[in-house]
Amino acid sequence: MSAPVAPFPQVDHQRAVFADGLALDCGMAIAPLAVAYRTYGRLNAARSNAVLVCHALTGDQYVAEPHPLTGKPGWWESVVGPGKPLDTDRYFLICANVLGGCMGSTGPQEEMTDAAGRGLGRPWGTDFPNITIRDMVRAQKRLVEHLGIARLLAVVGGSMGGMQALEWAATFPETVFAAAPIATAAYHSAQNIAFHEVGRAAIHADPAWQGGRYWEAGGVPAQGLSVARMVAHITYLSEQALTRKFGRRLRGDTNPRGALTFLEDVFEVESYLRHQGSTFVRRFDANSYLTITRAMDYFDLAAERGGDLAAAFRGTPTRFFVASFSSDWLFPTAESRAIVRALNAAAANVSFVEITSDKGHDAFLLDEPDFHRALGGFLAGCADRLGV
Amino acid sequence: MSAPVAPFPQVDHQRAVFADGLALDCGMAIAPLAVAYRTYGRLNAARSNAVLVCHALTGDQYVAEPHPLTGKPGWWESVVGPGKPLDTDRYFLICANVLGGCMGSTGPQEEMTDAAGRGLGRPWGTDFPNITIRDMVRAQKRLVEHLGIARLLAVVGGSMGGMQALEWAATFPETVFAAAPIATAAYHSAQNIAFHEVGRAAIHADPAWQGGRYWEAGGVPAQGLSVARMVAHITYLSEQALTRKFGRRLRGDTNPRGALTFLEDVFEVESYLRHQGSTFVRRFDANSYLTITRAMDYFDLAAERGGDLAAAFRGTPTRFFVASFSSDWLFPTAESRAIVRALNAAAANVSFVEITSDKGHDAFLLDEPDFHRALGGFLAGCADRLGV
Repeated sequence: MSAPVAPFPQVDHQRAVFADGLALDCGMAIAPLAVAYRTYGRLNAARSNAVLVCHALTGDQYVAEPHPLTGKPGWWESVVGPGKPLDTDRYFLICANVLGGCMGSTGPQEEMTDAAGRGLGRPWGTDFPNITIRDMVRAQKRLVEHLGIARLLAVVGGSMGGMQALEWAATFPETVFAAAPIATAAYHSAQNIAFHEVGRAAIHADPAWQGGRYWEAGGVPAQGLSVARMVAHITYLSEQALTRKFGRRLRGDTNPRGALTFLEDVFEVESYLRHQGSTFVRRFDANSYLTITRAMDYFDLAAERGGDLAAAFRGTPTRFFVASFSSDWLFPTAESRAIVRALNAAAANVSFVEITSDKGHDAFLLDEPDFHRALGGFLAGCADRLGV
Repeated sequence: MSAPVAPFPQVDHQRAVFADGLALDCGMAIAPLAVAYRTYGRLNAARSNAVLVCHALTGDQYVAEPHPLTGKPGWWESVVGPGKPLDTDRYFLICANVLGGCMGSTGPQEEMTDAAGRGLGRPWGTDFPNITIRDMVRAQKRLVEHLGIARLLAVVGGSMGGMQALEWAATFPETVFAAAPIATAAYHSAQNIAFHEVGRAAIHADPAWQGGRYWEAGGVPAQGLSVARMVAHITYLSEQALTRKFGRRLRGDTNPRGALTFLEDVFEVESYLRHQGSTFVRRFDANSYLTITRAMDYFDLAAERGGDLAAAFRGTPTRFFVASFSSDWLFPTAESRAIVRALNAAAANVSFVEITSDKGHDAFLLDEPDFHRALGGFLAGCADRLGV
C-alpha cells in the first residue's frame, strides 16, 4: 500500500495493515485494510486488561496525547490517564481511527485500490464504499486480534463511539466483557439525520468540493466543511452552555446601533462558531465527513431484527454501563432509556446513570466528576471481577 | 422611485411610498420609504376594527391569498378569513412586507438611493443599512397612519412577527389596543443567534454571493441560501414532527446495504429538506435574509432598559395575549413566560396560554384548534369591548 495522497500534512501514523482486507455490509470488499491506532498503558500477561475506546464522528486515535496536526491535547485526557477513570496504570487502552476516517485508517483520502488490492494512484474520494458502524467494528476486531487479545475487558465510547460499543456487544458478545455506551442511541433520529444532511449539503454546495474530486484541483471544500462543523457544533452544546459562554455579548467595539453598513461576527457566539469551523478544516477530510455521517445515519440496531432492540442482546454475557446527560438534546436521555429497556428485556446486566449537567452533548468530553466516578467505578468493578 | 432591479420575476406589489423616508436606529435615514402591503376585509366607519398582522422571518404580506411568485396559499389562511379567528367579516386586516424584506418594501434588492433620495441605478445589496425590529415597526406605523387609522384594534404576529407585536406595544402603546405576541421571545437567544449565523455563513460561503453584489453577475447564491433554509427549517419542527413525517424511512428503492458508491437523499427527510431549500430560493432574496436575521439577533427589549423587561410596558394601556407551543424549542414556553412575568410586573392586562402540540415552532402556522379558539376569543373580546 503506497502512501496516502491527501491534501493534508502527512503524518506517520502507527498502523496495522491487513492484506486480505475487509468484507463490507454493502457487499463490497476493501483490500488492503489499514487500521491506524494508538495504545496507552501495558497489556498484562494474561491479556485480560485491554479496553477499547471508540471515538466520535470527528475524533481520532489520539485520545491522551497531543494531536499530530493541531498540537492540541488528546480529546479524552479528562478520562484517560494514570489514576483516571480509564486508568492507564491498570488497563491497556486501545483506540483506532475508524474505517472511513482521515487519520491513517482506510478511508476516502487514502489511496484507492482495485479488487486485487493494487493502488490506483488516486484517493478513494467519493468512490469509497458506503460503510456502516458494523463495518467500523469489524475493522477494530481485526486490530484487536492482531494485538493478540481474545477478549476485551471493555469497549467504551461516547456519541458515535457509543454506537460502536453497542454494535460490538451485539456482533461480538463473547469478545466484550463489558460495554459502556455513553451519550448515544441505538438508532439515529430523524432530527439528527436532518442536521447531518445540512452539513452534507453545505459540503456539496462548496464549488471547491468538485463533486468529491477536490484533490485534482489541489484544494479542499473548506467553507462547506466549516459550515457543516458550525451547525454540528451547535447541536453539541446546550442553550445553557451557549448562554453561559456567550449570552448575547457583542464583540469588541462593534455597535449594532451604529451606522455600520454590514457586520459579521458581531456576537461573540458567531466568532466562536466561525473559529470552530475554520480550525476543523485543518484536521478533517470532507469526504470522510460525508462517509462517517452516513454511517451514523444508517445505524439502527433494531431495524435488522424486526424492530426488536432486545433481540440484539438476548442471552448476552456482556455487562453494560449506559450513561446520558440531562441537557444533551442530540442524544437525549430518552434514547439511553430505550437502550436500558431493551437490555432489561434481554435480561442483561445493566447499570444506567443520567448525569445532571447543563453542558449538552459535549458533557461526555468535559470535566464531569459524577460521570467520571460512575464510569471509573463500573470499570474497576469489572476489572476486579476478572482479577485484573 | 424607479423599479426594483432584483433578479426576481417582477411583481406589481401594492405599495405606499413615503418620500420623506425613515430615520433608522443605526443613525442613517432611508428615503424614499416604500411599504408594500395587503389588506383583507373592510375598515369600518369608526376606523376602529383594524388589525395589523406582522409576518415572520421569511413571510410576507400575502397572508390570505396565493403568493404571487409561488402560487401557494397565503401563509396564515388557517387563521385569517371569514369566520376564522382573524375574522375578515369583522376586522380590517393589514399586513405589510417588513422593512428589509424582498416583496416590495424598501430592502436590499430595491434600488439604492442617495441622501437626497435619488436612485443610484443599482440595488442596495449589502449597503442596505443595519436595521432593527423597531425600524420595521416604525415603517408599519407610517403605513397605518397613511391608511387613516389612529389606533389599531390589535397587532398580531408569531415568531419575528411576535417580536414586532411586542415592539409595537413598547414603542407606540397608545396606538395598540391589544397585542398578541405568539411563539416568540423578548430577546433572541444565543442558540438562535448561532443557528442564524450558520445560515449567514452558508450564504457568505457561496461564491455566487459575490460579496453581496450577485446582481452584477446576474446570479443568486441559491445553494448557500438553500442550506440556510434547510438548517432553519429543522429548528421550526420538533423531533416528534420530523419523526412522524419521515421517521427513518428510506426513499424509493435506495438501499443503504447495497453496493452504492455514493448516495444522496437516501432518507425521506433529506429529500424534504432539499426541496424546502430549493423552493425557498425562488421567492427570497439572500441579502434580505442576512438583513432580517441580523435584526432578529439584535432584538432585546430589556437591554435598552437596563435589563428590566417590565420597564418596556410599565403603565401600558395595551391588553396582551401571549401564546406558546409545548414542543417549540426555537422559542420555548419559558421565553413566553418571561414576557408574561414582565407584563405582570408592569401590572399589564395579560392572558397566557401554552398550547399542547407536538408540531414545534411551526405550530403557530398550522391547524391548532385550541390556539385558534384562544386567539379568536381574545380578539373578539377586545372587539366587543370597543364596540366593533
